[in-house]
Amino acid sequence: MTRAAVLGAGAWGTTFAAVLADAGTDVTLWGRDEAVIRAVRDERRHDTSLPGIELPAGIHATTDATEALADAELVVIAVPSQRARAILEPFRPLLADHALAVSLMKGIELGTHERMSQVISEVWGLPDDRVTVVSGPNLAREIAERQPTATVVASTSTEAAERVAAATASSYFRPYTNADVVGVELSGAYKNVIAVGVGVADGLGYGHNTTATVITRGLAEITRLGLALGARPETFSGLAGMGDLIATCASPLSRNHTLGAHIGRGASLEEAITLTRGTAEGVKTAQSIRELAASAGVEVPICDGVVRMLSGEVPPSTVVETLLSRPRKAEVG
Amino acid sequence: MTRAAVLGAGAWGTTFAAVLADAGTDVTLWGRDEAVIRAVRDERRHDTSLPGIELPAGIHATTDATEALADAELVVIAVPSQRARAILEPFRPLLADHALAVSLMKGIELGTHERMSQVISEVWGLPDDRVTVVSGPNLAREIAERQPTATVVASTSTEAAERVAAATASSYFRPYTNADVVGVELSGAYKNVIAVGVGVADGLGYGHNTTATVITRGLAEITRLGLALGARPETFSGLAGMGDLIATCASPLSRNHTLGAHIGRGASLEEAITLTRGTAEGVKTAQSIRELAASAGVEVPICDGVVRMLSGEVPPSTVVETLLSRPRKAEVG
Repeated sequence: MTRAAVLGAGAWGTTFAAVLADAGTDVTLWGRDEAVIRAVRDERRHDTSLPGIELPAGIHATTDATEALADAELVVIAVPSQRARAILEPFRPLLADHALAVSLMKGIELGTHERMSQVISEVWGLPDDRVTVVSGPNLAREIAERQPTATVVASTSTEAAERVAAATASSYFRPYTNADVVGVELSGAYKNVIAVGVGVADGLGYGHNTTATVITRGLAEITRLGLALGARPETFSGLAGMGDLIATCASPLSRNHTLGAHIGRGASLEEAITLTRGTAEGVKTAQSIRELAASAGVEVPICDGVVRMLSGEVPPSTVVETLLSRPRKAEVG
Repeated sequence: MTRAAVLGAGAWGTTFAAVLADAGTDVTLWGRDEAVIRAVRDERRHDTSLPGIELPAGIHATTDATEALADAELVVIAVPSQRARAILEPFRPLLADHALAVSLMKGIELGTHERMSQVISEVWGLPDDRVTVVSGPNLAREIAERQPTATVVASTSTEAAERVAAATASSYFRPYTNADVVGVELSGAYKNVIAVGVGVADGLGYGHNTTATVITRGLAEITRLGLALGARPETFSGLAGMGDLIATCASPLSRNHTLGAHIGRGASLEEAITLTRGTAEGVKTAQSIRELAASAGVEVPICDGVVRMLSGEVPPSTVVETLLSRPRKAEVG
């Protein structure tokens, strides 16, 4: 039986622990919050992140990292992306030999512009082929309800991706492997920025024609930057690209979408963050992606608009208007 | 001043007449229903198709086709796609010299498997460069409310596409030209089939993860068939491809989506058609596209599932399950 540890007991980390348990993997969830860990272990509940969900019986839970990581062949990481480097550093000596890292995180690190798999490789001294990434149209709440869901497991090592797929596949969770780590991670991070933009359009009262346009142009923007960074075009039209973008933008549960909607309705960034409760990864990721795009020489008008709006430089309406008010011209060419 | 006629006084034809009027084009709307035409002309209202909307002052309206088509440089066609051939035939002798046809229709003709621009060309004896197609994320109701909307005008003739763009562009309606008529028309028709599939998933109680997967796989399926028929890949990732698909699948107003949802909740096709009120183009288009794909040797699992479900051959759940239950494998490869 495969042994796995999940670091981070938020909604997605806890849900992924349930996915592993339901797939027959021996899983231990690690988190800092005694009360959360105790409720998961003793009552199979996580009332703050997954209210109303009964977790499967097989999840061990602990606040002791040494216990969680002992003999763990898979180490799944679901901590806030901008703090990942600092959080993960102390775990390094606890890792089992040959442990495989699995990133569930969706962000680009401020300053370094690194994807989460790069941060993990650096902090834990792991070669590329021992890091995998899971991303797709994967709203945690729906998976916790055991709704059928497809996802993508990306790694430069096919064998590593297949190990993670085998440890997670079940009647409701269906992983597909993909070798394009750059494309999968960029899509997962960037979609949060586009979701802020779609939220802004919703908050301003625009309808489906406009939000569909923002999503469509958003994917074109993600793809453009991804290709410049060496990603494969098929990734962006797949589940981790278009699929995740659509699920996130459709969901009223997405924090990034909600944050954008509050701003569109007139809230300040600070007010919107308070109203959204929790980390809207898109805020910091937008800044990182804008810098990454600038160094790659790629134009990213939606991301630019989101950054400038969040900094108060332009009003929210700019995010939508720049898309719709460009000179009339050929769509392609 | 450009003169235009719009044939068909349903929601989209009437809305497009308003778009033309707001763009400064002299427009006459033709329809068969005396009461509808009188209300549009005298009260600037169309209570059955566009309740609550005040139409612009500039729309002429008539039930007299000779009057509508006299000197019309642009002839816009918005009639049910499966009846287009029969409806359009008698208009042929009334067309002005050098009139340009503009298709708003979204369907593939049963039996012939022809796109609407091909039907128009044949019935009216027009060369390709005198037929254009308008398609995009264009929910009629939102445009009638003057919500900002982008669209695609496709023609093999750049000049023709630009004439239509110039006659329709306004502060809220933004046309982009595209030379890929095949891709634009196939997308517009096929999205109705995918919308039925998404509606089925909704009706069965699946969440956003699943519907995002159906939409993503749906666009891949449309693209695969389109490329086999000579379309350009960029069209499918653009406004007339992905944009229209997302807007249609997101909208509770889409008849195809609604039809699918009724069936997903257990209604028969007949009951669902009654409950949906009006033409769900996806029903007949699914059959045409399935045959077209078979002759092109392209696999179209969602379309297949929709056709087989509509014929009662398989239960609604099949449409979703075939997508999620394939063997675990590489997403791309």
